[in-house]
Order: sequence, then structure tokens, then C-alpha cells
Amino acid sequence: MIVICKSSAIESQIKAIEAEIGKHGLQVHRSDGVAHTILGVVGDRSGVDPQSFATMPGVREVLQVSTPFKLASREFHPDDTVVYVGDVKVGGTELAVMAGPCAVEGVEQIETTAQFVSSHGARILRGGAFKPRTSPYSFQGLGEEGLKMMRSAADELNLAVVTEVMTIDQIPLVSKYADLLQVGARNMQNFPLLTELGKANKPIFLKRGLSATIKDWLMSAEYILSSGNAQVILCERGIRTFETATRNTLDLSAVPVVKQLSHLPIIVDPSHGVGDRRYIAAMARAAVAAGADGIMVEVHPDPARALSDGPQSLTFEQFAALINRCRIIGTTLGRRIPKGTDR
Amino acid sequence: MIVICKSSAIESQIKAIEAEIGKHGLQVHRSDGVAHTILGVVGDRSGVDPQSFATMPGVREVLQVSTPFKLASREFHPDDTVVYVGDVKVGGTELAVMAGPCAVEGVEQIETTAQFVSSHGARILRGGAFKPRTSPYSFQGLGEEGLKMMRSAADELNLAVVTEVMTIDQIPLVSKYADLLQVGARNMQNFPLLTELGKANKPIFLKRGLSATIKDWLMSAEYILSSGNAQVILCERGIRTFETATRNTLDLSAVPVVKQLSHLPIIVDPSHGVGDRRYIAAMARAAVAAGADGIMVEVHPDPARALSDGPQSLTFEQFAALINRCRIIGTTLGRRIPKGTDR
Amino acid sequence: MIVICKSSAIESQIKAIEAEIGKHGLQVHRSDGVAHTILGVVGDRSGVDPQSFATMPGVREVLQVSTPFKLASREFHPDDTVVYVGDVKVGGTELAVMAGPCAVEGVEQIETTAQFVSSHGARILRGGAFKPRTSPYSFQGLGEEGLKMMRSAADELNLAVVTEVMTIDQIPLVSKYADLLQVGARNMQNFPLLTELGKANKPIFLKRGLSATIKDWLMSAEYILSSGNAQVILCERGIRTFETATRNTLDLSAVPVVKQLSHLPIIVDPSHGVGDRRYIAAMARAAVAAGADGIMVEVHPDPARALSDGPQSLTFEQFAALINRCRIIGTTLGRRIPKGTDR
Amino acid sequence: MIVICKSSAIESQIKAIEAEIGKHGLQVHRSDGVAHTILGVVGDRSGVDPQSFATMPGVREVLQVSTPFKLASREFHPDDTVVYVGDVKVGGTELAVMAGPCAVEGVEQIETTAQFVSSHGARILRGGAFKPRTSPYSFQGLGEEGLKMMRSAADELNLAVVTEVMTIDQIPLVSKYADLLQVGARNMQNFPLLTELGKANKPIFLKRGLSATIKDWLMSAEYILSSGNAQVILCERGIRTFETATRNTLDLSAVPVVKQLSHLPIIVDPSHGVGDRRYIAAMARAAVAAGADGIMVEVHPDPARALSDGPQSLTFEQFAALINRCRIIGTTLGRRIPKGTDR
Repeated sequence: MIVICKSSAIESQIKAIEAEIGKHGLQVHRSDGVAHTILGVVGDRSGVDPQSFATMPGVREVLQVSTPFKLASREFHPDDTVVYVGDVKVGGTELAVMAGPCAVEGVEQIETTAQFVSSHGARILRGGAFKPRTSPYSFQGLGEEGLKMMRSAADELNLAVVTEVMTIDQIPLVSKYADLLQVGARNMQNFPLLTELGKANKPIFLKRGLSATIKDWLMSAEYILSSGNAQVILCERGIRTFETATRNTLDLSAVPVVKQLSHLPIIVDPSHGVGDRRYIAAMARAAVAAGADGIMVEVHPDPARALSDGPQSLTFEQFAALINRCRIIGTTLGRRIPKGTDR
Repeated sequence: MIVICKSSAIESQIKAIEAEIGKHGLQVHRSDGVAHTILGVVGDRSGVDPQSFATMPGVREVLQVSTPFKLASREFHPDDTVVYVGDVKVGGTELAVMAGPCAVEGVEQIETTAQFVSSHGARILRGGAFKPRTSPYSFQGLGEEGLKMMRSAADELNLAVVTEVMTIDQIPLVSKYADLLQVGARNMQNFPLLTELGKANKPIFLKRGLSATIKDWLMSAEYILSSGNAQVILCERGIRTFETATRNTLDLSAVPVVKQLSHLPIIVDPSHGVGDRRYIAAMARAAVAAGADGIMVEVHPDPARALSDGPQSLTFEQFAALINRCRIIGTTLGRRIPKGTDR
Repeated sequence: MIVICKSSAIESQIKAIEAEIGKHGLQVHRSDGVAHTILGVVGDRSGVDPQSFATMPGVREVLQVSTPFKLASREFHPDDTVVYVGDVKVGGTELAVMAGPCAVEGVEQIETTAQFVSSHGARILRGGAFKPRTSPYSFQGLGEEGLKMMRSAADELNLAVVTEVMTIDQIPLVSKYADLLQVGARNMQNFPLLTELGKANKPIFLKRGLSATIKDWLMSAEYILSSGNAQVILCERGIRTFETATRNTLDLSAVPVVKQLSHLPIIVDPSHGVGDRRYIAAMARAAVAAGADGIMVEVHPDPARALSDGPQSLTFEQFAALINRCRIIGTTLGRRIPKGTDR
Repeated sequence: MIVICKSSAIESQIKAIEAEIGKHGLQVHRSDGVAHTILGVVGDRSGVDPQSFATMPGVREVLQVSTPFKLASREFHPDDTVVYVGDVKVGGTELAVMAGPCAVEGVEQIETTAQFVSSHGARILRGGAFKPRTSPYSFQGLGEEGLKMMRSAADELNLAVVTEVMTIDQIPLVSKYADLLQVGARNMQNFPLLTELGKANKPIFLKRGLSATIKDWLMSAEYILSSGNAQVILCERGIRTFETATRNTLDLSAVPVVKQLSHLPIIVDPSHGVGDRRYIAAMARAAVAAGADGIMVEVHPDPARALSDGPQSLTFEQFAALINRCRIIGTTLGRRIPKGTDR
């Protein structure tokens, strides 16, 4: 923590600030500059709100130094973390492709989709069974029935399954069927849920909140890590800005920034990021080029009839074309997408 | 729903769009303009994603018409709703003053604060017992002990109590002690929590999410209302923007906009909105002048020693001066703050 | 400037950073903390980009300390600045009311409006003659003819005139007719224009850019001040956020923040801030309550027929009611609106 | 234009709205839905503010239909536009690489840089001679001397030159030396400048404003096109959001959106977009993968000593590595970067 004094601060004010810091058991290093006196604060700050000093007389501003997250930081853990999702490694050489419908709608829909995406190299099947919908009047998902359908479709093709868990009491149920537990963007700061997921024995897929800074997001990862679960994958899916041409603004710069600040793998979900099928392939390719550890895309056999998010679901043909390009782009960064399974 | 065709759309495309709409059991009214053909869609749209048609050939854009929220809308319920919090009416002539510390820290702190704010006209005591903190390493609140202290302090002064409930399973516990259940900004789209609060027999205090549009927010209120609880108070507490001089950007225009769109009462919380004691009184006065039904402010006997949010807590003196000004401003809109209780 | 080293920084890296700083003629104060070494940098930094050190090995981040603006800062100039607009003082006890149509459309329109607003206490007439319109196909203003009409209408009533100047070569022309030269939001960082206005002998009305932080805005004021013109009035008129219920988000917290950081007067323009007549009065009242030095509002004798910004123009009746309330609110802060002139 | 009536609108209100529309010489098509009456408005709307009807009794909202830009729209001009910059084609098969220092600082700096970037395939040299700086105290550029140095360095290598023009009166001067005239982000809505550039006989490089929607940006292009200059290249360079880990948020989804809405070429400038050398290569690769027509990057022989934007300038080595990867990524979209020149 660094306290910067006003240029107009008088000696008695500075002394009072130093005394106040001392009361919290912290040490002060003072530097008198031409324009400002600067107080460097050293010691264990846990329990001290660094802003507590901000409004003392003579204080101009208080700057926080220590990274607020520890376990999630690359300083703490220099090597990349590889997370196992079933037997799929996320964060290594292989690029993870997570694909499937927004919501599980029925056996045929999920099986057809699973077969197609698997045949093109996807190894993780996505699909919603519990859907967080902005309107209480929208389709809310098939619940456990949907989970069963997804698990069954995945097992036939040796795929892993990722799906959302919305509440603490859903954790055991969803864990029974899924290999990767998704925290949706709206729950990114649902701290009790994060804490419980820290005790789950499945890896966690943590979507970035619509208004979360990258630091907020890593701090939410810290909740999970500090509760005992080291298997966290981050997912960028767009932030809210003034632009209305896209559903959200996909912040691809989060990819290199997260790689700099953290050791956790990062996946990009362009489907929610832009919300319009016409723009998704471009952004998925860009995500791979930016260095993401994989992509999550919504694919539907008949998007016009999807019960949710139809306009942002790729058709099978679009998905196949996308993966072909991503294979080549991945090679420039030493990454590969696995071969598709035979049907 | 309105479908606007491209100027380049050909007759067969338009016919295909009309046919597609018909398949969903909806009726179409067609208008051929000079530049565009416009299709007005009429019928029960529930279960139909209005964006499903957006990517059909010949479609330029799809505009949604019906208000997405019903029970929360003023069209549905033209008269202002008055919510009872204990025996305090919120949304009527009286301006509600909700005041107290960010977090309950101990008996003396909460009692002293309750006495002071009550003596100046506050009739609802605020205080956190379960605290959602960005960092897992920050003070997380006193839990039920805190609730007890708050209830006891309030009862001595005949105050009502508002405090946050973070999870579904906290609802019965918190309901035992509080008169008004707060949903924090980070939980504004925690839909399972909202649905359960719709079954609670206490009024709900719904804070606006950091990246929630006013429509999103009213839609979250709709979750509570449609689950059976008509007693909802909205609380504006700042949105996230690029400005860093304040913690958030307090969107006071939400006050007249909500009054136009909805019948629910709206309170403004400038403490979280700006996050800096030096700016809070100005924004609280502005909130009253804008027509808010009340204010929620953090007050602490010794802000420099507060365990959380110290820099945004008012001192007793600042609080007293603020209320005096708000009384006068309120009169210009026919609103009054109750007299303070004797100590 | 403060350089914070990584916890992993080794001595040779720190020495290299110190050496690099020294090469720029700056002095270093070093503090070795438990987790980090912190280098306080002292000296004349002009010409040195503080971020130059940010990417050296061992550097974690570089924090800038000195306020980037000087002449505009309250540290430099502790007393409030009062700006004379004609013979109207802005920034003193009197609340400035600037009112008039968005664009001057004709003699009768501007005269009728001037008489009405003057009769209710406005002492500065606003109106556009050169209009910056987003579309090249929209009405662009009457140019010099508009200026003449406005000046003439103002002179009859002893009002001052504020109007926008869009280019350097318009400065002499507009200065001939106006008492206060407005820089529009889109020109807030048109630095050549600001520099030239610094040489004008009229006060400047500097609107905040849609995406300008308060610091950016004060830095633009600094351009004018440092070119020799000390008469600058700031105008908050909304920033761009994700919210679409209002045209922009009026950032009223800019009022107390500017009062803290700067000595310059600040006016609020709710008309552009919210863009909808139904919300303007609420926000104008709030601006006065927040401590603004005045308000600027668009008023039109027949808003439905206005050539620009009709939906955000107040009717005469609305304006009159607004001013009556603002008078009372102003008194709570020791401010007054002058009596209206007789017609 | 579409006027949607309130569900509570009565027949006399609807009739009044129809009459008002008729007064503007427009035709109305009425559709009576279950919940709402919808009025489709047809005719020449120029000069009519579509929002004029928004506040009439019985009106719920007014939706605008026609694309606000024409000449810039793909509906108007279905084929991609190719812009000639000197003899370099931008918008065709070849990927444009624009590279060079932020500011021209001297002969040796610009020549060394030009040689290096040319040897790796850049065919357009960038560099600032007139610099728009947020602070009046920062380095403002070398002016005409800088232009001469850049022209001379480019001519030796047969490169084209792009540089910024900040004011109308700089147009003839800059046109003497540059092949492509840049409009900076802060001037994107400097309409008098855009109009004059519409009369210039050089192509224009229009950067997106920090708070400009894609529609605003295309409307600014429309100013140039409608003034007679059809040679416009768009440049995405980041928008302002709440995220602070990067200087701005590079909105790469602008690439596919612009390709959908417009026929104009689009270049991405990741240097200003993220402002940190460590993240630029990732974003440049992503831009190519997203389908941009080229990239603009800042390159400096010694970034640590750059007079401006050092931290966001690539070193020579980083630039070379980046181009190698972009070559491969480009091939997946059928795009190529020209071979580098021999030194």
C-alpha cells in the first residue's frame, strides 16, 4: 500500500497519517519528494481496508500494490495449469473445442449435435439443463432429464460434458452427470456458490461477469481456489458496453492479459459474446489466434427452431468450416485440435 | 414483434418469412413501404424467441414491442405501489431514510448508530450480517450474531431492519430478524434466489446490478412478483462505467425512468454509488430532488475504523447535516422525512 | 511516479531500473518491503513518459502521482473561480440558468423563447447556429443569420448569449455575437481548437466528452488555461454507458468531484444528458441539489415542431415549474436564481 | 419509421398521431394488434426528427427503420470497396500492413524503422507529425519537418505514407506529403473537418471514436462520402469501457459487423487498442483471423526511449515474429501479406 500526501500536506498531518498506519501494526517508509511525500506501507495488511486512510487530512490518494489474488496469480504459480475435464486436458497443447446446443431440448437434438461436433474434433459437449433466463416467462430448461440426455449422448462418443450449476443445492445433482461445472456470468460473484464449488471434486468453468474487470474475475477464481479446488478454467464471454450492434462486446484482449496475470486456462465463448451467428466464426477464429486455450460455441441442428439462443447458434456446416480454419490458425501457435471421431 | 425486411428482399423471401411466422401460430400484418416491407406480428408469443427470425434471408432486423415485464409495469398497475416495511410505508408521502453501518461489527457500534440515525428521522436501520466481498480474504460479516444485534438495537427504537440475504437457505433465518430482505447488486440476476424470495412473506429490496439496464432490473423484479410477492422496492446504487473518479456511476436518471415505466418504489443508495464520503451528501440530496422515495446511506460512529466500506461511510455530523437539507428539498415535491425520535 | 517491482524481481533487475531512471535525470528513493521493492521517483518528469519503465524486466507496475493538470486544479488555485459571462457571474452565489432552443430557427421562435425564459430568471440565452449533427443529412443550423437573431433577442432583454463554435475560423465570427463560446462534447479533445480558444477574449463553456473521464476533461480545460484564457466553465452533459433508456447517462457525481479537484464552475445540461423531456426536470432539480453552479436546459415554444432535439426540449410551462422548484432547492445550499424580468 | 401505441391508447389519440404524421407529408399504414396498434410510416422523412412523435399522448415508442447511412452501406453498394493508397490496394486480396513509430522523432529513427518494416512486408509507413496529446505539456510532434522526414524515408523504399491531419488548414500541407490522411479517434465527429476531407483528393483513414457506436462511425464516413470522396478506410482502435487492464477495449467484433453493414475496408490498430506491448501481437493476429483488411502497428527501434507511446510500440523482433504468424493466419481467409523488400 502506498499513501501519497498532498503537496499542501503539513508536517503534523503527515505525522498523524504515519501514526494511524502504525496503529494497524504496519511499518512506514517515508520518501519526501519535491512535490509530494510518499509513504510506503509494509506488513500484513489482511483485515485493513487500504482505503481507510484515503480521507485523512493531507492524503491525496492511496494506491494498493499487492495483487489482490494470490492462488490465481502467475507470480504465485509460474507454470500454466492444465485442467482435466474427464480425460480431456485443457490448457496444454491441445485446443479444447466445447460445442453443443444452448439448451438440451430432447434426445434426438442432443445426440445428433453430439455426433456432428464430435466428428469434427469437439471433445467436450455443452448444453444447458438449468437455464438462467432474463425473463421468468422464457424456457427454463429440462432439468435433470436434460442432464441425463446429455450424459448419455456424450458417453456414446466418449465426450466430456460441461453444463451450468445455478445453486448450491444443484451441485451434487449436476456433478453426477457433468465433468465440468459451469458458473454462469450472472453468478460470477455469487460468493456462497463459489465457496461451495471450491469443495466440489469436479473442475469449474468460470464465466466472466458482464461488468467484471479481469481482476474481479480472477478474484472470483480465488474464492474457488482458496476453498480447495485448484481446477478452474476461465471463460471470456463478452462484457457490457455502449455498443448495440452486438449482444455484448467480446473482450479478446482478456486472453493475453489473463495469460500474463494468471496460470489458469482461458476459453472464449463467442456465441454469447456477440450473439449473432453471422459474426461468431470470425470471433472464434480470432480467439484461437489470440492464444485462447479453446473455444465454446453453440451449435444446433436447426437454429431457427431452437428454444433459446437460436440466432447465435451455428449450423452444422458453419461449425465444420470454422473448425477447419481454426486448425490452421492453431498451428501458428503450436496448438492442435484433435481429429474428429468416426461417426 | 415487428419484422423489417431488407430493401433488397424479394417476394419469395417475404413469403417465406410470413410462412415461418405462421408456423408459430402467429398472425402477420404486412405493410409495403417505399423502402421496406414491414411485417407486424400479432398473437401469443410466449415460447417464441423473437430473434428466431432475425437471420432469415431478406430480414433486416426484428424489433420487439411488448414490454418484457408485465406485473412490474405501470401500464399494468397505474397507481404507485406502497410497500410496508414493518410499519414504515415506502412509496407514499413519507421519504424513507435507511441508515446504518455497512456491516454490523458489535453491539455498541450498532446501538450507537441506531440511536443517532433514529434521532434524525431514519426509521429503517441498515447493516450487513452476511457480506458479499470481492475478496475471499476480507471480513465476511458476523452472521446470525449480527442479525440479533441489529434486531435488538432496532426494537429499542421501534425501527424496521433491512439486511442482505445471499442464498436461498438464508431466507428463513434472515426473515426471522429482518423486516426487509435485501438482494445485493451481484445477485440481481440470481434467478433461483429471486424465485424463492417471491414466496417469502417479507418485502424485498432489490438492488440494481452493476451492468443491468433498467429493463433487466425490472425483469428481475418481475421474477419476484410473478412468484407471488408483490412487495418489491427497487434500489439504484450505481452502474459500472469507464469513469474511475467514483467507485461506480450513480445513475440518478433511473429515478424518473423507473417512475415512468413502473409502479414500484425506488430508493437511492449513494454510498455504494460513489464510494467516497466527500461526494455522498451531494448525491443523496440530488436523489431526493430527482424524486426518489428515499435514500439509503452508510453511517458509522468512527468510519476510519470501520471493518468494511469505511471511506464511504458518513460521520454522524455529516448525516445530520444531510438530513436537514433533504427535509427542505423534499418539501418541493410534497415529501416529508419524519421527525427524529427522542433519545 | 512510483515504480513497483515484482516480488520475483532480482537485485540486478532493480539496479537496472534504477539506472534507467537515473538516465532521465530523475532521483530514486528505494523502499524494500516484505513483498515488493518500491521505487519513488522524484524530479522534473516533463518529457518522460511514466509508462516507459512499465515493461522493463522486474517491473510490476508504474503508478503516476502528480496531478496531470495544474492550472485547472484546486491545489494550484484553492478559491472558486467566478467567470463573467457578459455581466452575469457564474460560479458565485447566483445560480446560472442558461435556457433557449436547441437551434435558432427564426426570429419569432428565438424572441418568444428569450422573453419567456428571461421572465423566469434565465440570464443567459442558449441556441445553436452551427450545429454538429451525427448525420450529414440533418438540419445544420442557420449560421451567422442565427447568431444575429440570437444577439438581437438577447439585447432587448439584457441577456448574455452562449453558442457553439465548431472550428478555429468560426472563433472571430461567433465572438462578435456571443458572450460565452461553447465547445461541444464532440470537440472536447479538439486540441487545436482548444488552444486557439485559449487566445480568445471570451469565456469558454467546455462540455464534457461522451467518453471523457473527469481527468481528461480537466486536462482539456488545462489546454485553454495554459494558452492564456482563465475563464472556463465546465458543463456535464452525460456520458455514454450501456443504458439505453436515456440518451446518455448524466453523471451528476461529476459535480462534487469537480468541486473537489478544481476551482472552475460547473453547469449541468440535463437536456442532452437524458434526451427525453419527461426526465429533464427531475435531473435539473437534482443538479441544483448536487451543488452545480447552474443548469442549461433546452426550451422551445412548440417542441413537436422543433427542427432538432424536439423530444428533449421543455415546454414553457414545464420550464416555469422547474425554475420554481430549483429556487427552493438552491436555498438549501445558499444559492439563488435571480428574479425574472418583466416582459 | 414505426410508431407503437400504448395498449392504453384510445382511438382519439391514435387519430391525433396519424394526423400529426400526415402533416409532415408522410403516409401511415395502421395495424391493430391484440396488445398494440402499430403505425408504419412511409415517405420521405428527411427533415423530420423521428423522435418528434415520441412524446405524444398514446405513443409508447418510436422505432427508426431506415439505415441512417446510405453511401457507406452495403445495401447501397454491395461489392467491397478497394481503396488505393499510393499504389497499394487496401480491401482486396492483399493484407495491408501499416507500421512505423507513434511519432516521427528524427531522420535516423524513421529511416531505420521504415527499412525494417518494409523488409518484412509493410507497404504503408505510419508516423505522427501533428500529435493530439491529452496533456498540453506532452510532446506535440515535429510538424512539417516530421512530414518531410517520413516522405523521404518512404520514397527510398517505395512505401506509401499515412499520417494524421488535425485541422482543416493542415489538409493541403499534409496532402503534399501523405498518401492517406488519418482522422484521429478524437476527431471522428469533427464534422467540419470530415466535410473538408470529403473534398480532398486523397483517401481518408477514419479511426473509430472512443465512444462511437459502429453506426455513429459509419455515419461519420457518410459525411466524407457525401461530400464527394469515396475513398474511405475505417480503423478500429478500441473503445472505452470499464476495464482498466488495457488502455481501451479493442472491439474486434467491429470487423465482421462492418463487413456486414458496409463495403468499406477495415483495418485494426491493436497498439492503441490495448496500449501494452505484451498484448499487441496477440490482438494483431486476432484481427487478421477475424477478417480485417490489414493491421496498423506501432514499431520503434528503441521503445524505451520513444517520445510518445513507447510502452505500446513493438520492437523490431516482435514485429518480425508477428508478421510471420499473420502470413499463415491470412492464408486461411485467402489473404496474403506481400513479400518484404530487400534492404
